[in-house]
Amino acid sequence: MRELADITPVKWDNGKIAWINQTRLPWEEEWKVSESIEELASAIESLEIRGAPAIGVAAAYGIALSAANQSEAGSMKDNVLACYGRLRKTRPTAVNLFWALDRMLSKFRSLEASDAPAVEIREKLLKEAMAIHSEDIGANKQMGRYGNGLIKDGDTILTHCNAGALATGGWGTSYGIIRTAWQSGKDIRVIATHTAPLYQGARLTMWELKRDGIPAKLITDNMAAYAMKDENVSMVLLGADRILLNGTVANKIGTYGLAILAKHHKIPFYVAAPTSTIDPKGRKIPIEQRKPDEVRNILGKLQITVRDADVLNPAFDITPSRLVSAIITEKGIATKPYMESLAAMK
Amino acid sequence: MRELADITPVKWDNGKIAWINQTRLPWEEEWKVSESIEELASAIESLEIRGAPAIGVAAAYGIALSAANQSEAGSMKDNVLACYGRLRKTRPTAVNLFWALDRMLSKFRSLEASDAPAVEIREKLLKEAMAIHSEDIGANKQMGRYGNGLIKDGDTILTHCNAGALATGGWGTSYGIIRTAWQSGKDIRVIATHTAPLYQGARLTMWELKRDGIPAKLITDNMAAYAMKDENVSMVLLGADRILLNGTVANKIGTYGLAILAKHHKIPFYVAAPTSTIDPKGRKIPIEQRKPDEVRNILGKLQITVRDADVLNPAFDITPSRLVSAIITEKGIATKPYMESLAAMK
Repeated sequence: MRELADITPVKWDNGKIAWINQTRLPWEEEWKVSESIEELASAIESLEIRGAPAIGVAAAYGIALSAANQSEAGSMKDNVLACYGRLRKTRPTAVNLFWALDRMLSKFRSLEASDAPAVEIREKLLKEAMAIHSEDIGANKQMGRYGNGLIKDGDTILTHCNAGALATGGWGTSYGIIRTAWQSGKDIRVIATHTAPLYQGARLTMWELKRDGIPAKLITDNMAAYAMKDENVSMVLLGADRILLNGTVANKIGTYGLAILAKHHKIPFYVAAPTSTIDPKGRKIPIEQRKPDEVRNILGKLQITVRDADVLNPAFDITPSRLVSAIITEKGIATKPYMESLAAMK
Repeated sequence: MRELADITPVKWDNGKIAWINQTRLPWEEEWKVSESIEELASAIESLEIRGAPAIGVAAAYGIALSAANQSEAGSMKDNVLACYGRLRKTRPTAVNLFWALDRMLSKFRSLEASDAPAVEIREKLLKEAMAIHSEDIGANKQMGRYGNGLIKDGDTILTHCNAGALATGGWGTSYGIIRTAWQSGKDIRVIATHTAPLYQGARLTMWELKRDGIPAKLITDNMAAYAMKDENVSMVLLGADRILLNGTVANKIGTYGLAILAKHHKIPFYVAAPTSTIDPKGRKIPIEQRKPDEVRNILGKLQITVRDADVLNPAFDITPSRLVSAIITEKGIATKPYMESLAAMK
């Protein structure tokens, strides 16, 4: 088995939460440690912690932290509810955030209803957050095994944004599949997109690929069609921030375009995500519109257009299910009709 | 008639060639003046002068300059041939370069054959270069009138890279059509792509749009599909670096992907270029592969990935004619079958 790097982007650290500041990658590996819910919320908003599953894990630790900050049951409840309310407001699109917060809150409510003492509530909430974290890694690895069945020796896999260890509890969703395939000895290569405007593909996925030693080429976002035609791309494989039961996928801006390009080139288009990404009730997905400066000023460092240029800046787009060849989860590979295959997994 | 800005990117300046350094836009308007063919060639290679028609105009002035540098006929010929050879090697894809150089060389040869005195050869070569320049502007304006017929009041036009005044003798090909439509009073708006890795859309097209006062929004390259679906794009309109008689179009990397996305959304995909862009003999178009650092290090100023990342960096891609709704030239609008419509124009 080939060796892979060990990357855990969010951790419980002795009564505090620790995270690698992803806005500083690939330039430096800066770890932050905090016991402030406001700092954690800001870290999620500013993308120091990003990736739908990683946000879910961080939010779960946040609830555990909000309970641990107080020894009295009364103000513990206030703290937990305030933390729940604050973290819910950080990012609108990824559903894992709401899923993890709701799971933690319902754990809190059942402990409270059973008149558990404060010390037990704190312990069990932390245990629940750690379970969310380790279940996420377990789900990723299971997804990796299922997804690996779709990958052949010699394949070229085009991926977008970062759905790697950094985006999750520590293994990766779509990139976790790539890791599993590589670890199992398949000689694959990856083509990673820049992923403007925040360059998670260039900054984060290329950083992970280099640490893992997997052969990879970086392209600008507008080279994807060229790569599909001239670089023998075998499949597009990427993550998701929210999936509706009918198979509609919300993911990083650019995903929808890649799905159309894949269809045109008759290349399979695979989405990998844990079932916590599936929104069982949703019908419409809110798209986060981020600040104009992200499009004008690259990573806050390099102005590339005229001052005050009008811009569009949707962080995500919506890919209709008809363009999605399969959805890989920890419970298996869902295919059309998704309304049946995804419902069976949820 | 609405007012537009006056932009001439390459000029004959009293025995020298002057150009605006496009690598410094939009940060500063730096003009360079030179009488060195080597400096001119470097300026084309480093994209200080860029855009297929503008390169053609610059090359024509280059030949005139190489003749003017010498008073004796013998070494004038050496100089002209050396200049011709050097400039041919600057960029491989745009055909206007070769077209302009060949036209200048054949003018030189006919003057030489007629035993014209050196002073007359110099004068007539300069006149020929100036004719190439003014014919380009005239062709652009004529193209603008034809193309304007395809634009309706209220249209949203998605464009890519820069095919504006800066890319031409001074009016613009695809952007010249947008200018003509705006000047004629139509209320249009433009969506311009970043155009990584050199950001000509963000840096140059947005700069021209602002100077002209035309409403515009900037997007990252991966937002094009989103814009087509959610921002009511009426058409894609862009330039070309080389067009084969069968309608195959070589243009800035990303063009091919936009053509596929336009087809998927049933949006017309228009290419605008002077007939000097048509390659009457070509069957295969060489694609310039540029330095890896352009993809790793944005505009040489901001490293966005791991050191020594492997990259792809094709400067152009090839769009097959079946994805091209029409080709707008100064001689009219060519539609399928292009083998007939383009041949009639050439």
